[in-house]
Amino acid sequence: MSQLSSRHLLGIKNLSATDIQLILDTAENFKEVINRPIKKVPSLRDITIANVFFENSTRTRLSFELAEKRLSADVINFSSSNSSVKKGETLVDTVNNILSMKVDMVVMRHSSPGAPHFLARNVKANIVNAGDGTHEHPTQALLDAFSIREKLGTLEGKRVAIIGDILHSRVALSNIFCLQKMGAEVMVCGPITLLPKHIESLGVKVELDIKKALQWCDVANVLRIQLERQQIKYFPSLREYSLYYGINKKLLNQLDKEIVIMHPGPINRGVELSSDVADSEHSIILEQVQNGVAVRMAVLYLLAAVKN
Amino acid sequence: MSQLSSRHLLGIKNLSATDIQLILDTAENFKEVINRPIKKVPSLRDITIANVFFENSTRTRLSFELAEKRLSADVINFSSSNSSVKKGETLVDTVNNILSMKVDMVVMRHSSPGAPHFLARNVKANIVNAGDGTHEHPTQALLDAFSIREKLGTLEGKRVAIIGDILHSRVALSNIFCLQKMGAEVMVCGPITLLPKHIESLGVKVELDIKKALQWCDVANVLRIQLERQQIKYFPSLREYSLYYGINKKLLNQLDKEIVIMHPGPINRGVELSSDVADSEHSIILEQVQNGVAVRMAVLYLLAAVKN
Amino acid sequence: MSQLSSRHLLGIKNLSATDIQLILDTAENFKEVINRPIKKVPSLRDITIANVFFENSTRTRLSFELAEKRLSADVINFSSSNSSVKKGETLVDTVNNILSMKVDMVVMRHSSPGAPHFLARNVKANIVNAGDGTHEHPTQALLDAFSIREKLGTLEGKRVAIIGDILHSRVALSNIFCLQKMGAEVMVCGPITLLPKHIESLGVKVELDIKKALQWCDVANVLRIQLERQQIKYFPSLREYSLYYGINKKLLNQLDKEIVIMHPGPINRGVELSSDVADSEHSIILEQVQNGVAVRMAVLYLLAAVKN
Repeated sequence: MSQLSSRHLLGIKNLSATDIQLILDTAENFKEVINRPIKKVPSLRDITIANVFFENSTRTRLSFELAEKRLSADVINFSSSNSSVKKGETLVDTVNNILSMKVDMVVMRHSSPGAPHFLARNVKANIVNAGDGTHEHPTQALLDAFSIREKLGTLEGKRVAIIGDILHSRVALSNIFCLQKMGAEVMVCGPITLLPKHIESLGVKVELDIKKALQWCDVANVLRIQLERQQIKYFPSLREYSLYYGINKKLLNQLDKEIVIMHPGPINRGVELSSDVADSEHSIILEQVQNGVAVRMAVLYLLAAVKN
Repeated sequence: MSQLSSRHLLGIKNLSATDIQLILDTAENFKEVINRPIKKVPSLRDITIANVFFENSTRTRLSFELAEKRLSADVINFSSSNSSVKKGETLVDTVNNILSMKVDMVVMRHSSPGAPHFLARNVKANIVNAGDGTHEHPTQALLDAFSIREKLGTLEGKRVAIIGDILHSRVALSNIFCLQKMGAEVMVCGPITLLPKHIESLGVKVELDIKKALQWCDVANVLRIQLERQQIKYFPSLREYSLYYGINKKLLNQLDKEIVIMHPGPINRGVELSSDVADSEHSIILEQVQNGVAVRMAVLYLLAAVKN
Repeated sequence: MSQLSSRHLLGIKNLSATDIQLILDTAENFKEVINRPIKKVPSLRDITIANVFFENSTRTRLSFELAEKRLSADVINFSSSNSSVKKGETLVDTVNNILSMKVDMVVMRHSSPGAPHFLARNVKANIVNAGDGTHEHPTQALLDAFSIREKLGTLEGKRVAIIGDILHSRVALSNIFCLQKMGAEVMVCGPITLLPKHIESLGVKVELDIKKALQWCDVANVLRIQLERQQIKYFPSLREYSLYYGINKKLLNQLDKEIVIMHPGPINRGVELSSDVADSEHSIILEQVQNGVAVRMAVLYLLAAVKN
């Protein structure tokens, strides 16, 4: 039987197309499970998983926690607010302590890019990256890929525009890697100040005009304006951003074609997306949330099967 | 078989006497359950319940969590402190996200009156109001009714005085609705500044003199002085309040009759109740806490059975 | 069958050597359990345990929570940050409320020495002290004793030096009681300002010179410099402390003997222990963490069996 090529999920960059395919196919099975009246499976009944979140997160932590509980794993939560890290302990010591309590898997969010990679080299146990700074957020990219594949049948040859704050987004980077590996074409679109320099070197198209981007793509993945990550001003005001890059119904009605609207959440309604678009038949935003649980079940299930 | 007339519990106002009767009778069964050595039943084994608390609460959250676990539900906790609400997300988006993860019921506390009603109109899933601002706190009223019925055999014709800060209390309003529907007579008593204007229009007696109130009633439900909810001063000092409205043993000894003392907790000992009264044979305060778990089990159990 | 002589674990001071022996022997069985692929036992399946932490703690709370879950208990967590204590409720009222919800055991950490003893006199239910101020931390002492016994075969006649901040350490006091009851010799070593006056009256040796202490002992239990507990300065600087009392590889290499290095965590690397010592073959620090879960399982399991 096929299995993943690594015992960690640190990023999409080092996953093969076969790995991604296996995760998406497995997630399809789990999506059936969570839509049954009995949503639990006993797969990870003897596995203890620690959710170690050094950065706050509602939806990602809840989604992982639900995935873990539906796999019947034992779950312990650890967040930075009640952490020994404040007492001067190193990251490796903190996690090694948790592992010494015989925890089998660690789902980690950390504000430093590379933190889960560092851990994976230094501790036993499966590590799942739930977001490391502005670097990668692999399960988000996998659930986005799953949602597109579910909606359009395949990723092969599809055109996906990632719109908004590419510079501060770990979602953007993981999505680019994932979509390209699965044969999709990727474009990034946003104000020039929010596009990383040399982003073309990743093989993506760059477009500053939102209308042209929407005309080009099958799927628009609209990112959050993350004001909390911006130390300096990248655009004059939210109103200005919304005027030039906000997607509203009028803009969609000008297109002579079908389009799928995605958003990783939480939405700033009226900023990057108008409410009528977020709630329209184009939007698969809530479907993404549901798929998140299925994809995370698949990731945890598959990693647990890799021989340590 | 009888079932509740609504799939939500938003307030007592819209419950029928039959609904309340059904909840209290069901709670009686669950009280037996939680006094057995084996306190769990498998009733909600395939139900996931999210406790969404936008306001802090110890006893209510713990009581719901225990009720849920004893019904074998899967429980996830969400509190405002680690919330996307801070990132600018709307209430409906937050809860819709939680629901997209296939959560079946939402127990919600929110500082805005009407927040759970708003949600119930906008999302699928059973909503239980665990307190909305100064509006309603229906499970508290149900457990108070349960405790009186258990102690006195019936609510019909009993006289209940609600004493203290009626103005800022969601407990008071829910209690008035619940007691009247079950045939009890209700009086409110407190300093004039802490009684809402036109409260008589609800059909309650109003009394400023605590001695007369105690002489009249079978049950005194003593509310907490909620200093944290008061922006302006409603009485000169705690000492003054305690002098005029605090219930102590001396006051009770002057009565030539039996009286039951209740308090929704947490008690400010020495302010609204003296310690010797709180711990006396008149007090059923800890019984109320125990009944809270049974009543919440009944509510969750009955709501889950209503066809969505 | 033998059982504990008390239904609480408040401190080591009142435990008999037989009690400690029973706990360590039981922990040995549980250590086997948690090293099996199936780490859970159904022993406390119908027991609800409340973890009531009025002081933050990562490792102790996680360790108890894992112990409880592996015994199949139902677990509820209560921390001061979302506590009614802030609303003016007394400690006894808070805990009585939790108990009225039919909680069987309370694991409590509190900043006031004696808080769990006070509770034990006033509430029903088994109380486990998880640290009370600078007084006792009995499960830490038990896991330290377990770890030494496991490493050296016995505690009888072994020489243990407790090194560092003895004055602010509840670990030190519990360790002294536990080791002496089990027949070990105890020395304390640290700057004179961090040694309590009259500590010799407990029957321990006192040594100011770290080299002599290391030369004397079989086991060095190195405590954390708890800067957060110190209102005034007890030594000039961390650099100074590290220079005179920090244990590094060079110091150990000068010894002509075997030595075991312990630390209750979290480690300040480079202050009380250098990294090469913390990670050396002398160190059993991570073993201590693992043993913590087994010892806490034993304590909870044995207390639950004492007739209330």
